[in-house]
Amino acid sequence: MVNEKADALKITKRDEDYSRWYLDIVDRAKLAEDSGIRGCMIIRPEGFALWEKIQQILDGMFKETGHTNAYFPMFIPVSYFSKEAEHVSGFAKECAVVTHHRLKVTESGEITVDPEAELGEPLVVRPTSETIIWSAYRNWIQSYRDLPILLNQWANICRWELRTRPFLRTTEFLWQEGHTAHATFDEAEAEAKQMLEVYKTLVEHYLAIPVFAGRKTENEKFPGADHTYTIEAMTQDRRAIQVGTSHHLGTTFSKAFDVTYLSAEGNQEYPFATSWGITTRLIGTLIMVHSDDQGFVCPPRIAPLQVIGVPIYRKEAEKEQVLNRFSELEEQFKSLKAFSFKVDTRDNLSPGFKFNDWELKGIPLRLEIGPRDLKNGTAVLVRRDTGEKVNVAQSELETQIKTLLDEIQANLFQKAKEFQQQNTYFVETYEEFKAGIEKKPGFYIAYFDGTPEDEEKIQEETKATGRCIPLGQTEVGKCFYTGRQTSTQVIFAKAY
Amino acid sequence: MVNEKADALKITKRDEDYSRWYLDIVDRAKLAEDSGIRGCMIIRPEGFALWEKIQQILDGMFKETGHTNAYFPMFIPVSYFSKEAEHVSGFAKECAVVTHHRLKVTESGEITVDPEAELGEPLVVRPTSETIIWSAYRNWIQSYRDLPILLNQWANICRWELRTRPFLRTTEFLWQEGHTAHATFDEAEAEAKQMLEVYKTLVEHYLAIPVFAGRKTENEKFPGADHTYTIEAMTQDRRAIQVGTSHHLGTTFSKAFDVTYLSAEGNQEYPFATSWGITTRLIGTLIMVHSDDQGFVCPPRIAPLQVIGVPIYRKEAEKEQVLNRFSELEEQFKSLKAFSFKVDTRDNLSPGFKFNDWELKGIPLRLEIGPRDLKNGTAVLVRRDTGEKVNVAQSELETQIKTLLDEIQANLFQKAKEFQQQNTYFVETYEEFKAGIEKKPGFYIAYFDGTPEDEEKIQEETKATGRCIPLGQTEVGKCFYTGRQTSTQVIFAKAY
Repeated sequence: MVNEKADALKITKRDEDYSRWYLDIVDRAKLAEDSGIRGCMIIRPEGFALWEKIQQILDGMFKETGHTNAYFPMFIPVSYFSKEAEHVSGFAKECAVVTHHRLKVTESGEITVDPEAELGEPLVVRPTSETIIWSAYRNWIQSYRDLPILLNQWANICRWELRTRPFLRTTEFLWQEGHTAHATFDEAEAEAKQMLEVYKTLVEHYLAIPVFAGRKTENEKFPGADHTYTIEAMTQDRRAIQVGTSHHLGTTFSKAFDVTYLSAEGNQEYPFATSWGITTRLIGTLIMVHSDDQGFVCPPRIAPLQVIGVPIYRKEAEKEQVLNRFSELEEQFKSLKAFSFKVDTRDNLSPGFKFNDWELKGIPLRLEIGPRDLKNGTAVLVRRDTGEKVNVAQSELETQIKTLLDEIQANLFQKAKEFQQQNTYFVETYEEFKAGIEKKPGFYIAYFDGTPEDEEKIQEETKATGRCIPLGQTEVGKCFYTGRQTSTQVIFAKAY
Repeated sequence: MVNEKADALKITKRDEDYSRWYLDIVDRAKLAEDSGIRGCMIIRPEGFALWEKIQQILDGMFKETGHTNAYFPMFIPVSYFSKEAEHVSGFAKECAVVTHHRLKVTESGEITVDPEAELGEPLVVRPTSETIIWSAYRNWIQSYRDLPILLNQWANICRWELRTRPFLRTTEFLWQEGHTAHATFDEAEAEAKQMLEVYKTLVEHYLAIPVFAGRKTENEKFPGADHTYTIEAMTQDRRAIQVGTSHHLGTTFSKAFDVTYLSAEGNQEYPFATSWGITTRLIGTLIMVHSDDQGFVCPPRIAPLQVIGVPIYRKEAEKEQVLNRFSELEEQFKSLKAFSFKVDTRDNLSPGFKFNDWELKGIPLRLEIGPRDLKNGTAVLVRRDTGEKVNVAQSELETQIKTLLDEIQANLFQKAKEFQQQNTYFVETYEEFKAGIEKKPGFYIAYFDGTPEDEEKIQEETKATGRCIPLGQTEVGKCFYTGRQTSTQVIFAKAY
């Protein structure tokens, strides 16, 4: 039985099959599983706890920056999409379409769609909510006094995907979508940039994932946006993954939905819009960036459970003593409220099995106490990130745990940052880039002022896309594709 | 302009048109609005803040009782419903059916459903999740060690409704649904009862809504349940409204989805299930129970904003002094963290308009300070529930506000409780009942041991349904319909 269970913990090695390694971790760490419904996953409690932490942190930051939450319908009439041409071609194509509102049981007992219950106008399950929200803003916005509107929505979203992968790309996913309205371009611009900063704080400070922040190229921006900001992370197979976007939508949607406001000067004006979102894809990124061949690695600040206690004993008498000591510690740590702690009291499993199990699940720190420790007043702390064992006095446990959790958090960020830096190259010529990205995947920074068509050609030839135009870059250089002088740098990479 | 705005605050009186009164409050207090999409509402920030409070309180209680959250797909294949006959006839009939996964743009530029993208099997947007969750539990449950499973999901739900009303009955609504699996009938029974108690605490302690807790009659129980527990509140038009239900599902779903576990004794057994839910309908109930002809009345413990400050001044010099004092108080109250407070600094509106506006929005307590108060070190607190003005020293504001908020909370519960008691009657004969419910709507308690058919006849004749069988009743009496001796009492009422 133990052998059979040990098998259940085995995961494919990263170097053997990166894709399989990722799926193994998602499955064995019980983060998510396939639902049997095309492209839809079940987010299991361990995985959902990560999303709850993300929600809690983000929602706090949204409220600190003056936003409130609201909720709009998940069904959007098809006609709403036709109001904004660019948006519909980008979004409304592959989607779930509700055409009927009733089932019926046939004479043979089968359940089928009732043909008599066809909807007059089909409804799309929201692929994003700009259209329905701006249709409501038409009634909400009359005067400059009604602005700004700073709303956010936590919701489920549906985009019909051909090839799916848990968290990274699913037909249904969870996200938050901010939708704001402003009197001026500059205000909207400040908002879009502020929310990118909020995302960067979440991702770098809490998830320990280093990112490049930048603007999207024309080809990669949001359909209907004036411009799009993005943060891009690097996975361990050296690809780019977009983890958050913030769009300055200009007056695209206020014009499409005929929303105007009376300015303080008495003129009818179109308000400016932003929208911004982060999805459950972030959990996939978290797994891909930090995990190793032993399983999931979770940074302490986002870990629902930070410290796991594993009692070590052989005889019954030892067991009682050790478990008592763990109960005392549980009480002590609970009242301290500085970190989350649980004891693995399962008595049908060996300590070795438990070590592997909690390593697989990514718990940042393990606390072991055995009979000898009881005598000596000692304990062992084992770091998930490095495997290092730290012998400590039980009297110093609180301080040591807090210090180690901070060190693990810092180390994970540092490690990922170094990895990102080691795999980021500056290239001057297109030949250098083509040769480079074929042999050494990674981020390639180059001066670029090509057209969208040029970017498409680059993608055809190399499978790499323009991930972002890093912010704050002012120097001038020669475009690696056209040879023209430009101040625009672009990061090219293969992407998820 | 002020007159036009004052008009916007007017609401229909309860006695004139109860239904219109409710809709007016929802609209004018900006809690929700019609989306233009059949039966779907937009929950505006003020309304959604109430849902967030409910979520926060409930989620805390769920976790204290050992539950964790997870997320299951919103799409359920039609075939899942055919596995449980009773369930499908109760649920899957009026629903949103996804039949296609693509739109296309026609040559004339119109957007239509792409007939080539028809799904092999239609998908239903979840009307409840028992089927998809128990289909997953099949893989999760093998041994008695895997039990109990104590899960909850926060989600959106769709039931195609003919007649809708914001919060009370909408095609899409928000809810939480708990789904648990247990080794024994008794454990599941304890769980179902525990969650009913959790709901009762939420509704009575926080929302100040008194309820009757009981079991549903055969006719009113959940399709597929062994039995259903419910809490029922009384609205001001003396109807019943179900605000939370907890179902003991027996082995209905484990059998339908072929879920068994190996018991400690080595036998294959079917686990027992519960499910329990509370929806955004609770917000509708909250509005209906406490509000008055001035607008929404919100109990302090559930109010997102508890105290609103309205500065009183005429001259510019006064304005600055008064606003400064309010800024000081804002800082003071913020660091106190005992209640939420905001100052209405809009300078284009009169104090009178502001009073009406915040009364309409249901803020429990108003704090007024004017130039004379500044001199005297005094302030006026005005209760939303009674309209009572309380003169207090500014030095005692913190204590007084806390005391008054507690008093308002207690008073609202007491008032609703008295109303419920005054409109609850015990009847011995069916004639007494028929005459009573026609003249005086309310809750009618009677001994009843009739059949489901009897209950249907009563409904046909009186439009009243069996709301619940109150818990803890042991005495014996004569059934008001059949004349037989029985220990079962039933509350009959017209219901939402």
